[in-house]
Amino acid sequence: MKIHTNLKQPGKPLTHYWRVCVGGGRVGEALRADFQKHLEMVQREMPFQYIRMHGLFHEDMMVYREEDGRHITNWQYVDLVYDHWLSIGIRPFVELGFMPYDLASGDQTVFWWKGNITPPKDWARWEWLIEQYIHHIIERYGLDEVRRWYFEVWNEPGLDIFWKDADFAAYMELYERTARTIKSIDSQLRVGGPASHGFGDHVGVPPWGEEFLAACAERKLPLDFFSTHPYPTLYPVDLEGRGYMTWDGPDRLLVDARGCDQLFRSSAYPNVERHYTEWSSSPSPRDPVHDTAFLASFIVDNNWRARGLMDSLSFWVVSDIFEECRQGDTPFHGGFGLVNIQGLKKASYHGYWFLSRLGNDVLAEGDSYAITRRSDGTLAVLMWNYCHYRDDANDSRLLASAKPGEIYGLFAMQPAREFTLNLEGLGTSARLQITRFDREHGSVYDAWVAMGTPQHILPADLDVLRRCMELDVSVQRIATPANTLKWTTTVQPFGVTLLEIRSE
Amino acid sequence: MKIHTNLKQPGKPLTHYWRVCVGGGRVGEALRADFQKHLEMVQREMPFQYIRMHGLFHEDMMVYREEDGRHITNWQYVDLVYDHWLSIGIRPFVELGFMPYDLASGDQTVFWWKGNITPPKDWARWEWLIEQYIHHIIERYGLDEVRRWYFEVWNEPGLDIFWKDADFAAYMELYERTARTIKSIDSQLRVGGPASHGFGDHVGVPPWGEEFLAACAERKLPLDFFSTHPYPTLYPVDLEGRGYMTWDGPDRLLVDARGCDQLFRSSAYPNVERHYTEWSSSPSPRDPVHDTAFLASFIVDNNWRARGLMDSLSFWVVSDIFEECRQGDTPFHGGFGLVNIQGLKKASYHGYWFLSRLGNDVLAEGDSYAITRRSDGTLAVLMWNYCHYRDDANDSRLLASAKPGEIYGLFAMQPAREFTLNLEGLGTSARLQITRFDREHGSVYDAWVAMGTPQHILPADLDVLRRCMELDVSVQRIATPANTLKWTTTVQPFGVTLLEIRSE
Amino acid sequence: MKIHTNLKQPGKPLTHYWRVCVGGGRVGEALRADFQKHLEMVQREMPFQYIRMHGLFHEDMMVYREEDGRHITNWQYVDLVYDHWLSIGIRPFVELGFMPYDLASGDQTVFWWKGNITPPKDWARWEWLIEQYIHHIIERYGLDEVRRWYFEVWNEPGLDIFWKDADFAAYMELYERTARTIKSIDSQLRVGGPASHGFGDHVGVPPWGEEFLAACAERKLPLDFFSTHPYPTLYPVDLEGRGYMTWDGPDRLLVDARGCDQLFRSSAYPNVERHYTEWSSSPSPRDPVHDTAFLASFIVDNNWRARGLMDSLSFWVVSDIFEECRQGDTPFHGGFGLVNIQGLKKASYHGYWFLSRLGNDVLAEGDSYAITRRSDGTLAVLMWNYCHYRDDANDSRLLASAKPGEIYGLFAMQPAREFTLNLEGLGTSARLQITRFDREHGSVYDAWVAMGTPQHILPADLDVLRRCMELDVSVQRIATPANTLKWTTTVQPFGVTLLEIRSE
Amino acid sequence: MKIHTNLKQPGKPLTHYWRVCVGGGRVGEALRADFQKHLEMVQREMPFQYIRMHGLFHEDMMVYREEDGRHITNWQYVDLVYDHWLSIGIRPFVELGFMPYDLASGDQTVFWWKGNITPPKDWARWEWLIEQYIHHIIERYGLDEVRRWYFEVWNEPGLDIFWKDADFAAYMELYERTARTIKSIDSQLRVGGPASHGFGDHVGVPPWGEEFLAACAERKLPLDFFSTHPYPTLYPVDLEGRGYMTWDGPDRLLVDARGCDQLFRSSAYPNVERHYTEWSSSPSPRDPVHDTAFLASFIVDNNWRARGLMDSLSFWVVSDIFEECRQGDTPFHGGFGLVNIQGLKKASYHGYWFLSRLGNDVLAEGDSYAITRRSDGTLAVLMWNYCHYRDDANDSRLLASAKPGEIYGLFAMQPAREFTLNLEGLGTSARLQITRFDREHGSVYDAWVAMGTPQHILPADLDVLRRCMELDVSVQRIATPANTLKWTTTVQPFGVTLLEIRSE
Repeated sequence: MKIHTNLKQPGKPLTHYWRVCVGGGRVGEALRADFQKHLEMVQREMPFQYIRMHGLFHEDMMVYREEDGRHITNWQYVDLVYDHWLSIGIRPFVELGFMPYDLASGDQTVFWWKGNITPPKDWARWEWLIEQYIHHIIERYGLDEVRRWYFEVWNEPGLDIFWKDADFAAYMELYERTARTIKSIDSQLRVGGPASHGFGDHVGVPPWGEEFLAACAERKLPLDFFSTHPYPTLYPVDLEGRGYMTWDGPDRLLVDARGCDQLFRSSAYPNVERHYTEWSSSPSPRDPVHDTAFLASFIVDNNWRARGLMDSLSFWVVSDIFEECRQGDTPFHGGFGLVNIQGLKKASYHGYWFLSRLGNDVLAEGDSYAITRRSDGTLAVLMWNYCHYRDDANDSRLLASAKPGEIYGLFAMQPAREFTLNLEGLGTSARLQITRFDREHGSVYDAWVAMGTPQHILPADLDVLRRCMELDVSVQRIATPANTLKWTTTVQPFGVTLLEIRSE
Repeated sequence: MKIHTNLKQPGKPLTHYWRVCVGGGRVGEALRADFQKHLEMVQREMPFQYIRMHGLFHEDMMVYREEDGRHITNWQYVDLVYDHWLSIGIRPFVELGFMPYDLASGDQTVFWWKGNITPPKDWARWEWLIEQYIHHIIERYGLDEVRRWYFEVWNEPGLDIFWKDADFAAYMELYERTARTIKSIDSQLRVGGPASHGFGDHVGVPPWGEEFLAACAERKLPLDFFSTHPYPTLYPVDLEGRGYMTWDGPDRLLVDARGCDQLFRSSAYPNVERHYTEWSSSPSPRDPVHDTAFLASFIVDNNWRARGLMDSLSFWVVSDIFEECRQGDTPFHGGFGLVNIQGLKKASYHGYWFLSRLGNDVLAEGDSYAITRRSDGTLAVLMWNYCHYRDDANDSRLLASAKPGEIYGLFAMQPAREFTLNLEGLGTSARLQITRFDREHGSVYDAWVAMGTPQHILPADLDVLRRCMELDVSVQRIATPANTLKWTTTVQPFGVTLLEIRSE
Repeated sequence: MKIHTNLKQPGKPLTHYWRVCVGGGRVGEALRADFQKHLEMVQREMPFQYIRMHGLFHEDMMVYREEDGRHITNWQYVDLVYDHWLSIGIRPFVELGFMPYDLASGDQTVFWWKGNITPPKDWARWEWLIEQYIHHIIERYGLDEVRRWYFEVWNEPGLDIFWKDADFAAYMELYERTARTIKSIDSQLRVGGPASHGFGDHVGVPPWGEEFLAACAERKLPLDFFSTHPYPTLYPVDLEGRGYMTWDGPDRLLVDARGCDQLFRSSAYPNVERHYTEWSSSPSPRDPVHDTAFLASFIVDNNWRARGLMDSLSFWVVSDIFEECRQGDTPFHGGFGLVNIQGLKKASYHGYWFLSRLGNDVLAEGDSYAITRRSDGTLAVLMWNYCHYRDDANDSRLLASAKPGEIYGLFAMQPAREFTLNLEGLGTSARLQITRFDREHGSVYDAWVAMGTPQHILPADLDVLRRCMELDVSVQRIATPANTLKWTTTVQPFGVTLLEIRSE
Repeated sequence: MKIHTNLKQPGKPLTHYWRVCVGGGRVGEALRADFQKHLEMVQREMPFQYIRMHGLFHEDMMVYREEDGRHITNWQYVDLVYDHWLSIGIRPFVELGFMPYDLASGDQTVFWWKGNITPPKDWARWEWLIEQYIHHIIERYGLDEVRRWYFEVWNEPGLDIFWKDADFAAYMELYERTARTIKSIDSQLRVGGPASHGFGDHVGVPPWGEEFLAACAERKLPLDFFSTHPYPTLYPVDLEGRGYMTWDGPDRLLVDARGCDQLFRSSAYPNVERHYTEWSSSPSPRDPVHDTAFLASFIVDNNWRARGLMDSLSFWVVSDIFEECRQGDTPFHGGFGLVNIQGLKKASYHGYWFLSRLGNDVLAEGDSYAITRRSDGTLAVLMWNYCHYRDDANDSRLLASAKPGEIYGLFAMQPAREFTLNLEGLGTSARLQITRFDREHGSVYDAWVAMGTPQHILPADLDVLRRCMELDVSVQRIATPANTLKWTTTVQPFGVTLLEIRSE
């Protein structure tokens, strides 16, 4: 790849929509010391603006109970969580749910931690609860602050594991009552839904998209944002009728987002904010791919290419302190996290870190590279070598027997890519800082495999893995007498390389 | 009270048995950021040597599961807890229990958090689990370290809420198998039981004491320590047959401990270590007394007087991050903690802090005072004004209608006490540091009441309460030309005063 | 004092010019661990925007040397200082001086630390040094950042102890060459002078003010700001011809500032920024008044009343880590610092803290009080009881024999003042937070005197003094059914009370 | 090199005398934030027990002054230093000197910072100063603590740059008065001298050794330890009479120490403690070798081989915050430090770190390797590849023209060394942790050269160099079915490799 560009040209503005939001497991996990340390590291190194977690009203948050006819709210644990988040510069992207046990109409639950998925037994009491909640956070954090939050009603109600019977009418009642209650307190508070699940085989068509927009329009409901979860997976059924999962093609996210855009344009809410409130390479919390080096370029490639199609794309999730299917048996177990249980940075972490280093102007872009300029004049050039799943192996049934390390057999390996830069418009000398990720550099999963895949990481192992998880970085100073830099580098399969250039 | 003593005399050695152990809720709560901060504060200011918590094998610790016939252990969460404890200088006083769900023989549970209280469905598998656990901690922390821990078998099996049917034979099987398994790995590992519950109306007689000791002797079982929980409460029944709780007299702890000592002496284990692994002013997690200024002098008075009768008396518990009965609705709700949910130091915290300041030699003691000397020669004099419950009000039924602040009506208020010291054997001048606790100084519960008992403490309130929770301290320098100090002070009801004297 | 106002009225905007700048000793002291801790505490609790220190080019900063005909600059120590400042949110208000020894034309020095006060031996080399310096900081911190700094040429050149022979022509050469050199690099960098000394007996007339402005105008020199040091002191001579110092009347700062304003208006620079780059109750580093409770209300009263007359009034200095006259022999020795050597907050610290709590709108003001509103709606009411020097005792000769504690005899003690507030426009209930300073509350100097004025503060003493240095704070919740609060308080002599009111 | 040993054998005890003491510049520099950070890093990673610095009584410590006939001591700055040291677990190895200006008999000084090197003008006043000092530290830290310190009288009095006229009689008076004063306060306080300078061309003969021991014996003086500075350098003179420095052979330290031992045995103090209170590869603060990779194996090789010959060998010095010859112009300038000005770990740092990892028992040793066992059973194997100076290039005159990077031409490069281990007595599997240092791994000086030797390290450069300064570390797990490990590695020139083996 030969890249020739002039750095003095005006650039096109770049929106860092990838840093708007990130997911986490359940709010109760945000009380954990380790989860907090993980989030603090993320915020220190590549801050996100919002975090979205399930289960704000779940039992372990102790927010609601009934006793002797009294109904009692208790926001003390919620306060501990929000106080922490705001202290490290991240705001809640609030997901309103699940149902407090004492307010539930049934006992169906989801996840190991048993979030109640039923409608309220008393709609007025639900409205009262929402009111109490909103008043409490306004009292504690001030209206100006709370106006900057988002309130999303429930999670994936189109699936009956998340909302009893996947009852659309009941959801619309929930949405209407919740949205109206919130807006009645302050009309600038931002409400949205339907938080719908992965599109699966309905490529480009968000579950409940059309009907939800129509129902909102019909009832004249407020809708500040539309939210859905475009996981890029398909769900075939084998000859014996057993379902499995495959990973879709490399453009799936773009196709899904374009489908949504078309839907919005034709709706009563053409300018609704578009928040993709969950996304990863698959919606499985035991997908070994999540741990591999693959995730870095997957994240870079998708986010770079989907620019303009969304207001946020919230990676699911920040930490492997995540208990929807209990906890994984081993330090790497296919969890969703940017970091694992012990706080080790996975490839996905680096993917977001690379994105966070980009500038505010795009000077040039092309197949697997982007040249941007920061406001201080530094250039940030990103180059990557994305390898997609093999056509004959994008199949979750292959995972059952794969041992750690063998998982790379899923991918159609590409050759190493050479990038040759020819950049005009520099000063007379340049400082180049080169930061590399690939399986040999910064892929802690690969280091753990090399170490013998210990089921429990000894403290001494952890010290070593902490070094292995860091990217390789070096600095060169190059004379550029003709104000032009010629420079070549090679990016390995799964690799991402950041080149930062500053005239000196 | 006039106190006259010579400071140059040799002292009697003082064992700080009160700092051996402290309790906490369940091990899963030790993963919480706030619990960890609370424990860190305690360890910084008045370190304990051991901590004992329930539920090591409870589901939320993820230690055991079965799948497709495999049985899988996972110590990753346990490691997070123990790593933290050891890093701040506190060791586990391990309570072995409750039953992992996949290993349980029934589904009876205890507490809001549903600890399974049934025997294992497979005794060999239980032994295997214990073996895995012990091997794991030895691998991670080393045998030398683990030999300094204690292993207590289960919690309060004499109550059917904690052990199915309170089945003694089943408990003996559990004890025998557990103890033999541990000892077979290393004979110096320390095992004990029966962790029996409060003596209640059986004053001086530990539940299951006699039978447990006899059964151990008969089976020739190892028993390094005997453990029980001498809560000083009685359980009368009213005229209509309804049970309630009363607080017993001020000597109850001593009477119970003497009863135990007599029992041990007549048993096959006369020199068994005596660990009272839970204790507080009552075993109720919603006893408003726990928050009041009363606890400071209660702790000082009982611990001082019970010296020699025990190897540890473990206060139950360190933090109001404690969820046996869910979580309290308000910042102060009668919880057991030395600190409340928001980390505010309660009177009980100060009680232990005062004890921690005592020296290693006792020079003089008497009604409500103690004069000790530290190894650096500093004197530490403690004086207190203990007010016990009123005879006509030591009744839990009175609590139902009491508002915060009115709770002090339970106590037989004493007049302020004057202490006049006449100390010989000083140098020619002395530095006196006086640290005071009473309702006006350092009682955060009283400050919260004065503030209007807010249900949620605003950040600004918290800043103020953090100041109110600290003890009053001042320094004087006094010439003592005749090497003699005469000094008088007054201690208010519920007050404790520490006088530290250093010759200059 | 009865105060009646309506809180719903629009307010007049309030500029917090008191937080623009603070002074420090010499830049070399900013390398000290303790100085850094002191500044960090200040920035945490009441951040200033700029800090100004002497001796940037002094030998201990190692910035310039000559060897074998080469001239070598070395900004490594400067980088350590500036890196630290910027990391805690404070920028340099650069004072350019004193002269590097190898560049000096003479060997006259000032202070214990021997800052060289002579012009450069080679003017072109001075310009080169300035150029090197400016280029270095732009390379390191970026031009955008450096444009926010201020560059002041030298310190108090009108005194021959600071500038050889107080040679005005030589200073104008220094100013012209320095200003032109800086502006030639970037015209938006901000340059000013003449950093003149205390006005002394020339009330309202800044030293070198008129001649400097005229000379600048004549040479058409850039002048972004005018700087001078309005210390409120007079210098009489006694009958035997010996000079001494007296403290001037309570309006002196205002009179001086008005004089300056008149001067500017009639000059070629009518809109020049007005930076009073040093100020305190006197320019003596051994004036015991600096330690007393007096400073709190002195700072509040002067800053409040001088609003509108200046763009900054830079308190001299932040810390008693200050070595112009060597170091003081005792923890309190009349030093300039907001904090003493051991980091204890002095009354002056509290004075600035109270100012920092004011809001952005003034609702009412009067003799010794101010009612302001913050952007979140909270009210901040400040009330103080200022006691000026006695007419018959404002004389430095009295200090020689005064012992610690007796120093309060200098002041004309006022009675305690009662303030009665009648505030309309509240909600139905109010949270009041009351923070008090007076000799009994938060005056660490008074606590040290009570402790026996130890020459060396033991670690145990320090712990106690750290508590004594904090302000008294309490919270009340008051029902205000008629939306009106009536509330009375008393402020002791030297006292300052802050009342913060929030509707609930 | 083939190494065959059995790990089950008993070992020979190993004394870590290298960690007893480390040097620092002057005590005044210990007040610096950056010096403190450097020392804190050292203490965290490889703690020393004592630190020795010059200039305790130098003017910048403000300890003594005279005014109006009064003589005033002020230990406030000393307290700041000692408080910090003790808080991080390091004690003072006190060097008593230089002379406070107001107590000096002359004005001769040493170093850029002008330490006064003359005897006191009044011997009684000197004794009084020592008395005040000792009483102060006992009051502050307690006698038990101070008894663990060392007190060394002056520094290198045999050189006239450090002690006026190198007057032996005057030094003996200083020693006698100082030692007797200290011992009169407490006989267990430890005093020693003569802190003599490098032996230079007098191989094996410490300057002032014989005469000092004889004089002490004659006067019956207390002498707890003998101290001297065995720098391994020679001082030839060229044909034109100009002196220069050469680095002596690889055994020089051992020869010097054996010479001392012989001297002690024949003296009146045969069992005197032997503290070599300064040592490095040369006594020049601008010797570029100090920055190179050479220092790591130099330190390992010398310390390993000199075991048994000394009680401490104090590396000179901990940090390049060191101003004897002003400060260096560049980040690497041949300074003595284990870390440079910006806190980067130099090769010397790693040399000491490797030593700190050794166990307490020696199992085997030989040419350039050592096999030790820790108390927890882990093996620590050290292997190194030491390259001495070329015989034809050990000459300081060659340094003048050498550019950074060329300095390696001084050394007789050795081939890479292969070490083959054959270790018996392991369990059935082993965890191997391999930590490597060589020019490519962990040599920050080499990384700085590769970066273009920037004179000022940008913050971004610093981040990169901080990574480059760390050692390379990896972990392997190897099955050892016959309880025997065969393992081969290669150590590059200047390299040091640590292999830690733990049976699993």
